Amino acid sequence: MKGVILGLNPRANIIDLAHELKPGDIRAGAFSLMTSYRFFPKGTIHVVVIDPGVGSTRKAVAIKTANYCFLGPDNGVLSWALAKEKILEVRSLENEKLFLNTVSQTFHGRDIFAPVAANLSKGIPLRALGPPLKGFVRLNWPEPRRRGKELRGEVVYIDRFGNAITNLDRASLRLIGNGGIGVSLRRGRSCPLGAFYQAVPHGKSVAVLGSSGFLEIAINGGSAEKSLGLAPGASVVLTATGTRNRSR
Amino acid sequence: MKGVILGLNPRANIIDLAHELKPGDIRAGAFSLMTSYRFFPKGTIHVVVIDPGVGSTRKAVAIKTANYCFLGPDNGVLSWALAKEKILEVRSLENEKLFLNTVSQTFHGRDIFAPVAANLSKGIPLRALGPPLKGFVRLNWPEPRRRGKELRGEVVYIDRFGNAITNLDRASLRLIGNGGIGVSLRRGRSCPLGAFYQAVPHGKSVAVLGSSGFLEIAINGGSAEKSLGLAPGASVVLTATGTRNRSR
Amino acid sequence: MKGVILGLNPRANIIDLAHELKPGDIRAGAFSLMTSYRFFPKGTIHVVVIDPGVGSTRKAVAIKTANYCFLGPDNGVLSWALAKEKILEVRSLENEKLFLNTVSQTFHGRDIFAPVAANLSKGIPLRALGPPLKGFVRLNWPEPRRRGKELRGEVVYIDRFGNAITNLDRASLRLIGNGGIGVSLRRGRSCPLGAFYQAVPHGKSVAVLGSSGFLEIAINGGSAEKSLGLAPGASVVLTATGTRNRSR
Repeated sequence: MKGVILGLNPRANIIDLAHELKPGDIRAGAFSLMTSYRFFPKGTIHVVVIDPGVGSTRKAVAIKTANYCFLGPDNGVLSWALAKEKILEVRSLENEKLFLNTVSQTFHGRDIFAPVAANLSKGIPLRALGPPLKGFVRLNWPEPRRRGKELRGEVVYIDRFGNAITNLDRASLRLIGNGGIGVSLRRGRSCPLGAFYQAVPHGKSVAVLGSSGFLEIAINGGSAEKSLGLAPGASVVLTATGTRNRSR
Repeated sequence: MKGVILGLNPRANIIDLAHELKPGDIRAGAFSLMTSYRFFPKGTIHVVVIDPGVGSTRKAVAIKTANYCFLGPDNGVLSWALAKEKILEVRSLENEKLFLNTVSQTFHGRDIFAPVAANLSKGIPLRALGPPLKGFVRLNWPEPRRRGKELRGEVVYIDRFGNAITNLDRASLRLIGNGGIGVSLRRGRSCPLGAFYQAVPHGKSVAVLGSSGFLEIAINGGSAEKSLGLAPGASVVLTATGTRNRSR
Repeated sequence: MKGVILGLNPRANIIDLAHELKPGDIRAGAFSLMTSYRFFPKGTIHVVVIDPGVGSTRKAVAIKTANYCFLGPDNGVLSWALAKEKILEVRSLENEKLFLNTVSQTFHGRDIFAPVAANLSKGIPLRALGPPLKGFVRLNWPEPRRRGKELRGEVVYIDRFGNAITNLDRASLRLIGNGGIGVSLRRGRSCPLGAFYQAVPHGKSVAVLGSSGFLEIAINGGSAEKSLGLAPGASVVLTATGTRNRSR
């Protein structure tokens, strides 16, 4: 992909974002993009190629927002980021003149997305890419559910350190109130809320409001994924304890 | 290596191609290079440092072709790519003035290939690198073998998704004919030919003509390496079935 | 981090040095930096974010030397490299105007080190970063210990090939003398000294003076970490054998 891009635009500045995701894991890609894209300069072209349906009938899209352009398969991988952006234009990538001469059925990253991105970086307008689309595939975002005095969330992403990042954010914590907050995992496990990883002793679990803006379950100096058996979908429940937390 | 290159040529544009190969796996490096090099801009200097013999008597070479320059240990890792190129000049890297002051016995990538590549990128002619060579080490390419009505190929490379890529290409398929084609693996296993990965249900095996131009054995949403126990050298046999394939 | 840097300085040239270290392994980071930093051009800003104490009371520092600038958490990760440099200025990163607007408690790489590094690359003086410090945290370097006719060293780092790199260097070898040198590992194991990896048959162990300047225990074509069970801290003892080594 980088060779193709530089062949068309030698001045392109290409940055790798995430190559450690599980192959074909659309939700992990969507989360990774959602929490990172806004740290890139205005005008960045975000190209995402988590594409298990490559070669099938899934569309390929270019979506222009107020600040960025997003390119990828229309499988939802772009949707969590796009939910935070003002969308200006959606196009289906169909102008084959912008593709490599031979398009394989297994690697559209190289054959379609890379040359289209290079052309965009050189100033070609979005309308040259193909016909407009009215929408695009959106992944369901799992909203935390209130039940009595508790708020039931879930793990949505495991990062490369083994931290289990949830769908619970600062607003979720506020919803539970100003008193102490308990964090319960499955099998009766719980962990204290902490301001940072080392707020608990080495090897102990802690829930931290992390750099993505979401509460994450971590082990100080270890992997919550391995030690606690956490995976996407695992329940994480917030409850009001009435008393202040100690491990701040 | 990148530090050394940028110290000599701050304007060099350095791209990583493949760091996930098994250490010392010359054939994996040769395949990876063969299927990727031509997607880079004309004039690219391809530096390959899969070099288990570093420090021994193996030569180091620079090979200029009509479109590119290739640098690496003379252990065959460059040869599958070079088989597709028009070779103009072969030099042995012996001009120590172009090396780092101290050359280690274990990392010629940093001490020899990087500074030589940087010098080449600044326009030094190939003849300055060392004496001409008449040839270079060539790896044997396993040609598929015809036996009666079948064509016997083998796995030559496992990619990072666990797809098992074979030495069978579009011409091999044509050789078997226009009727249906059966793909047989060892232990009586077989898999359908498909146009793309999702041509079969999730978790099922499929043979796809992949982005490298070769037939690959894949599992839709999984790893053929793990699920089918495939490794380089494993047999993959094409046979004429007489009937059209269904899973197109 | 790269997005943040490029947003502030679009002309920054960003190089990845090491992402394969065990999470939070400060000593591995310190060794990796110590053996690599000097191959980068003068003026390079080395940013190191191995930061298990992120969010806690540990300081963040910028250290200017005669040739480079180093940025990182003040946990010792910079100290082995700095021991080889002439230190000109040490500052505590406290000028919040140079940080991202919102600073998380779990990713100062993105929120503090990246924007500060970008500002430095644009020419801001070190004194703008925060108040001067008199010192910084230094990791203990394990010096080899002489005992009679032997020199007792240890493994300090495992590289990505599984080579076990020790604290024994060329001077250690000279200390043992000009006759043969024996290399003993734990459990009565020993391995010959060789000039390069292939100085021994495939699959055999060898001690090689490696590209970092230190003696490393390797398996030709394999992993010493896996085959010999070596890890940081494992003993490696040099003894005078009186006879010349054969495997040169």
